[in-house]
Amino acid sequence: MTRLQWGMIGGGAGSQIGPTHRISAGMDGLYQLTAGAFDIDPERGRAFAKSLDVPEDRTYGNWQEMLEGERARTDRLDLVTVATPNATHYEISKAFLEAGFHVLCEKPLTMTAGEAEEIVALSRETGKICAVNYGYSGYALVRQMRAMVANGDLGRIRLIKAEFAHGFHADAEEADNPRVRWRYDPAQAGTSAVFADAGIHAFHMACFVSGQTPSALSADFASLVEGRQLEDDAMINIRLNGGTLCRLWTSAVAVGRMHGLTLQVFGEKGGLSWQQQHPEQLYWTPVNGRTEVIERGGPGLSEEAQRASRIPVGHAEGMPVAFANIYRDLAEVLSAEREGRAPDPLALGFPAAEDGMWSMRAIEAAARSAKSGGSWVDL
Amino acid sequence: MTRLQWGMIGGGAGSQIGPTHRISAGMDGLYQLTAGAFDIDPERGRAFAKSLDVPEDRTYGNWQEMLEGERARTDRLDLVTVATPNATHYEISKAFLEAGFHVLCEKPLTMTAGEAEEIVALSRETGKICAVNYGYSGYALVRQMRAMVANGDLGRIRLIKAEFAHGFHADAEEADNPRVRWRYDPAQAGTSAVFADAGIHAFHMACFVSGQTPSALSADFASLVEGRQLEDDAMINIRLNGGTLCRLWTSAVAVGRMHGLTLQVFGEKGGLSWQQQHPEQLYWTPVNGRTEVIERGGPGLSEEAQRASRIPVGHAEGMPVAFANIYRDLAEVLSAEREGRAPDPLALGFPAAEDGMWSMRAIEAAARSAKSGGSWVDL
Amino acid sequence: MTRLQWGMIGGGAGSQIGPTHRISAGMDGLYQLTAGAFDIDPERGRAFAKSLDVPEDRTYGNWQEMLEGERARTDRLDLVTVATPNATHYEISKAFLEAGFHVLCEKPLTMTAGEAEEIVALSRETGKICAVNYGYSGYALVRQMRAMVANGDLGRIRLIKAEFAHGFHADAEEADNPRVRWRYDPAQAGTSAVFADAGIHAFHMACFVSGQTPSALSADFASLVEGRQLEDDAMINIRLNGGTLCRLWTSAVAVGRMHGLTLQVFGEKGGLSWQQQHPEQLYWTPVNGRTEVIERGGPGLSEEAQRASRIPVGHAEGMPVAFANIYRDLAEVLSAEREGRAPDPLALGFPAAEDGMWSMRAIEAAARSAKSGGSWVDL
Amino acid sequence: MTRLQWGMIGGGAGSQIGPTHRISAGMDGLYQLTAGAFDIDPERGRAFAKSLDVPEDRTYGNWQEMLEGERARTDRLDLVTVATPNATHYEISKAFLEAGFHVLCEKPLTMTAGEAEEIVALSRETGKICAVNYGYSGYALVRQMRAMVANGDLGRIRLIKAEFAHGFHADAEEADNPRVRWRYDPAQAGTSAVFADAGIHAFHMACFVSGQTPSALSADFASLVEGRQLEDDAMINIRLNGGTLCRLWTSAVAVGRMHGLTLQVFGEKGGLSWQQQHPEQLYWTPVNGRTEVIERGGPGLSEEAQRASRIPVGHAEGMPVAFANIYRDLAEVLSAEREGRAPDPLALGFPAAEDGMWSMRAIEAAARSAKSGGSWVDL
Repeated sequence: MTRLQWGMIGGGAGSQIGPTHRISAGMDGLYQLTAGAFDIDPERGRAFAKSLDVPEDRTYGNWQEMLEGERARTDRLDLVTVATPNATHYEISKAFLEAGFHVLCEKPLTMTAGEAEEIVALSRETGKICAVNYGYSGYALVRQMRAMVANGDLGRIRLIKAEFAHGFHADAEEADNPRVRWRYDPAQAGTSAVFADAGIHAFHMACFVSGQTPSALSADFASLVEGRQLEDDAMINIRLNGGTLCRLWTSAVAVGRMHGLTLQVFGEKGGLSWQQQHPEQLYWTPVNGRTEVIERGGPGLSEEAQRASRIPVGHAEGMPVAFANIYRDLAEVLSAEREGRAPDPLALGFPAAEDGMWSMRAIEAAARSAKSGGSWVDL
Repeated sequence: MTRLQWGMIGGGAGSQIGPTHRISAGMDGLYQLTAGAFDIDPERGRAFAKSLDVPEDRTYGNWQEMLEGERARTDRLDLVTVATPNATHYEISKAFLEAGFHVLCEKPLTMTAGEAEEIVALSRETGKICAVNYGYSGYALVRQMRAMVANGDLGRIRLIKAEFAHGFHADAEEADNPRVRWRYDPAQAGTSAVFADAGIHAFHMACFVSGQTPSALSADFASLVEGRQLEDDAMINIRLNGGTLCRLWTSAVAVGRMHGLTLQVFGEKGGLSWQQQHPEQLYWTPVNGRTEVIERGGPGLSEEAQRASRIPVGHAEGMPVAFANIYRDLAEVLSAEREGRAPDPLALGFPAAEDGMWSMRAIEAAARSAKSGGSWVDL
Repeated sequence: MTRLQWGMIGGGAGSQIGPTHRISAGMDGLYQLTAGAFDIDPERGRAFAKSLDVPEDRTYGNWQEMLEGERARTDRLDLVTVATPNATHYEISKAFLEAGFHVLCEKPLTMTAGEAEEIVALSRETGKICAVNYGYSGYALVRQMRAMVANGDLGRIRLIKAEFAHGFHADAEEADNPRVRWRYDPAQAGTSAVFADAGIHAFHMACFVSGQTPSALSADFASLVEGRQLEDDAMINIRLNGGTLCRLWTSAVAVGRMHGLTLQVFGEKGGLSWQQQHPEQLYWTPVNGRTEVIERGGPGLSEEAQRASRIPVGHAEGMPVAFANIYRDLAEVLSAEREGRAPDPLALGFPAAEDGMWSMRAIEAAARSAKSGGSWVDL
Repeated sequence: MTRLQWGMIGGGAGSQIGPTHRISAGMDGLYQLTAGAFDIDPERGRAFAKSLDVPEDRTYGNWQEMLEGERARTDRLDLVTVATPNATHYEISKAFLEAGFHVLCEKPLTMTAGEAEEIVALSRETGKICAVNYGYSGYALVRQMRAMVANGDLGRIRLIKAEFAHGFHADAEEADNPRVRWRYDPAQAGTSAVFADAGIHAFHMACFVSGQTPSALSADFASLVEGRQLEDDAMINIRLNGGTLCRLWTSAVAVGRMHGLTLQVFGEKGGLSWQQQHPEQLYWTPVNGRTEVIERGGPGLSEEAQRASRIPVGHAEGMPVAFANIYRDLAEVLSAEREGRAPDPLALGFPAAEDGMWSMRAIEAAARSAKSGGSWVDL
């Protein structure tokens, strides 16, 4: 299969989410990043594109230019990722869908429900995909939960308890830092801060896992750091259309919690519990039975979860990132050699032939010691 | 920077470690897989190479052909990864080093210490890197441990407790399965089974973190599943050259343990504890003080650890894998469209515009409900 | 100090809470159980009293008789524990307070707020204590939380997240079991089921730790098992009088959760997290700092917590219960001997002199082996 | 049943283990502490006895006096607990056994294997029990492990991994503190320090759970804090007489570990894992199956474990200690009243009628709010 042609808008230098998109899209070797408008500053964007090996003639100063340049081509982009500031998602996604591109938009899809409805209609009309990056639904064990629910393992789902609570906006002295402040400013963030930004992932996950859509809700918003106009903590009760009650807590002042995305699903026949910070284990308790630990990659997984499980059981899914650090260190040393410069000293920690040698010595010595009843052997 | 030219030997269809190498090397977009001999069966290898977009003229039937074909080129490979069966590592690595290539060899580097010493000498002589994939040393918090030890935070290191214990070879009825049996056959596996295969990672990590090399050891090997000639469980005491004692347990019959790679480091001034199954947290206890949780990406990390920390704090490092599942689903749908076939139904679970719409509706409804004292609002 | 004279009403054979009261009151040897009306069935109550060594002349058929019998004595009871069915707490506590006794009443104190207000007034008037057994406030680390809050370590408390969620009433087929059904019957349970029964402990703990009282609340009740008239799941938002917001979730259908009493406290300067299922550790995160593990019995505890910490650090507080099992086994064997009968075979597992002997042999052998470089030594 | 008459030698003021014995023996109300020689200083011992309500005529200045005084009585002691310094255990236990008393001796039973063999012989000869306080065998889930092994659930036991590792003797500056130093002085501690003191519990537990006795061992001892003559860290491999291999690690320099008593049992059919710091959960993994969490008090427990499980499932077994803190606070207030003094201010935190009142108000308000769709209600 030839690689898919991929374009990106936003996600340039300094972006938090941009690198995750490129790592993720790169992981399977299915995409080639062939076009982009990476930065609001065209020059910075071009420099960044160059660092990514994006061809110069498909590097653009802004999304409008990119739309112009790309719509005319016969070797069209297969997918355009929109990773720009939230307020621009709507117009960019709309424009690319109208021009016949498939789009993957960072969340939130839009700033209002009305705009989102337009995008849905447009996507149906054009037959073009507009995916939204509720990326946590990609975890193998989240898909396992969904499969178990769909399969009836839990019976009717009575209750979902969802949380996304962190403490990264708890510092009152940091509240005026522009990086934080815009999130609580209605002019920039819209009608909601922490629910729209963080809790919405838990909301999507509740819908995804239950296979239901929301029908009504009741919310309590609180602004717990002084001076904030939008909520930094919220409790929301949601009725889903299949009869499930969902209770969702989200917070940005929960000091000591990291992102803290968790889902507990309680049905007539059993309960499930999962947390993103330890995503490799799912806890399943049948009514009147013992809790079982479902390991990603372990026995008895659904087809959906097996497909999404990418490395062997028992290894935290971050293992490829660890290995990638070795490859990156090597790349730095190899590039430095090529460029005739000294490599970054921090890149020199990769395991070398000497490590392989000490291992072999240790193995031989251990086998010898074991044979002689555990006597000490010099290496 | 232009991508580095990368070649791979082994790691084809059905390989367990091959995909991890490609995911890891792909993650930063620094390598282009441009040559390979992926399989002992040349035809299967060629088909596999095609699926990876490796140019046909740089796809080879075996490593010897690859060596011939690649050594002559002016656009030489920057790195060759060796991911073949263990017994072939030595000759392949040796041949490529002699031909002037940099090599990344899967562990074990060789089958004997003598061979490993040859490789070390050869690497020094040729000035070519022969890295060995002790990939766990790439974890950010493993590098943090190393940095803290080097920085003297723990004082003199008295003791390291290292474990790599799993239960995947505990089933006596599976013991004759060829996938398992060869590991306990001296003819194929050499002098050691579980220590050479699994425990050696813990051994490398103890050396890596302490910055020491081993000077003597005492081992107890046990074959706990009947009929095995090599050990499936071992306890090894190791004296390191800086005066640290290391106690290492490794097992393949520890039912209920997943890979179970752990490291505890105890010094004069404090202790560290880390486990691969939850690699995002490192526990640090100063003598007479409280245990602190060092989060990957959190406050107070060493430069080495910050550099190796690739996604924001609080997200398990597997997050890119979750996102990659979304990208792969999209790729399947887009490719199916391109190829005029129906997509895999399992690929249809990605979040779509409808999900974005429901989110926006929920956000608006929640804001309205919160303003009216928590009244229920229909969506 | 002479032991305090202690009486008990309810808590007889088959009672769940009775034994915990006796274990707890017995632990420090400060009380002597000298009077009681243990059962609604007088005969069964007397037999039970005899098994507890309560003098016959101070064993009563019901609480009214006990009140008559005890109020006249000069060697008056120092404390009366009320552990009868909920609906009787009010009248019994009231009667004993009026007669000048100190009372420890199981929760709930009464069935209505009006009755509780009467008891408070009566307690003030008579100068007699009416304690209520919100016993979880006795945990050392709960007292540590309270002390840290009072000491200003967290600054102003913004938010408390409290939970008491279990799944023991989730089985629809068990819902008609009388042991469960009465809890959801307004005639017997009053206006609330799971909040009054379980969640109220989390409520008390939020008040206890914050040092605040509630000023307003908003609640969502759900009856998630069909046919229940009272709630088996509730979410309550509470405003406390010191400006803290408390969010409290309680459930009886959360399959897989054990009692699940947890408290998270978030202030301007840091956050605390504690759970009853692992009560020996309290997690403390200063704003912008690392999470620290406060161990019961470890360094830096408040005076309140030190006082409530009863066994050495690092031993789960259940250790005395383990030791008590040894003592009870011995008691069974000794009593059997005294009574000329065979002991319960289940009581024969206590460690005996042979165990002490094997230990000494192992110690001597280990010392010998260690001296000879780890050689194997027979025992 | 009349209470058993109980005597105690040692365990007076300042003793670490004495209070645990009294709490444990008191828990079931089966023993009456009626005689004792609590202290090497007779006066201090008498004062202490008085504080425990031990009759003056059965309070003794030393164990010899106690032996004289008690052997002549017709209302003989049913059990004598020996909680004196280790070096005296042998002679005291021997003397009381010879005089026909049942004994519960703190570990170690003696200082040498020869002495222990004498005690075993004497116990058999006299028919008197000499129990040894390997109290951890009293945990419900330790008994569950033993029952599962005995029942064949794990098949043949291949391997036991036992640990007892703490860091309380890691501080080199504290090493000369007399409280620590004697433990590493052969004149006072005998042939072994940390194995005899701590690791021996893990050793007993391995024997207890497997139902086997040791047949041979190999040990590596290390003195990791400078200047110590005895080991502060040890690794021991033990062959048990039923064919099981046991690997035992014990340490006193493992900074960050609390007492760290753990047991992992690996058999042909499955594995078990338990740790004393979280004693309420036992992890059971059948070969090729999912790990199950066996909860103390939960479904499917053996008869032995049910009998040893003393409080309801889901409550950490420390709950009675929490409740005991409430009872002790009340005792302090009641005693102060009786004695006409002010109570300790730290004892005033127990829940009072006001707490009961606020609870009832909250319950009524919550029910009202829930009925009106979640509107806010003042309390």
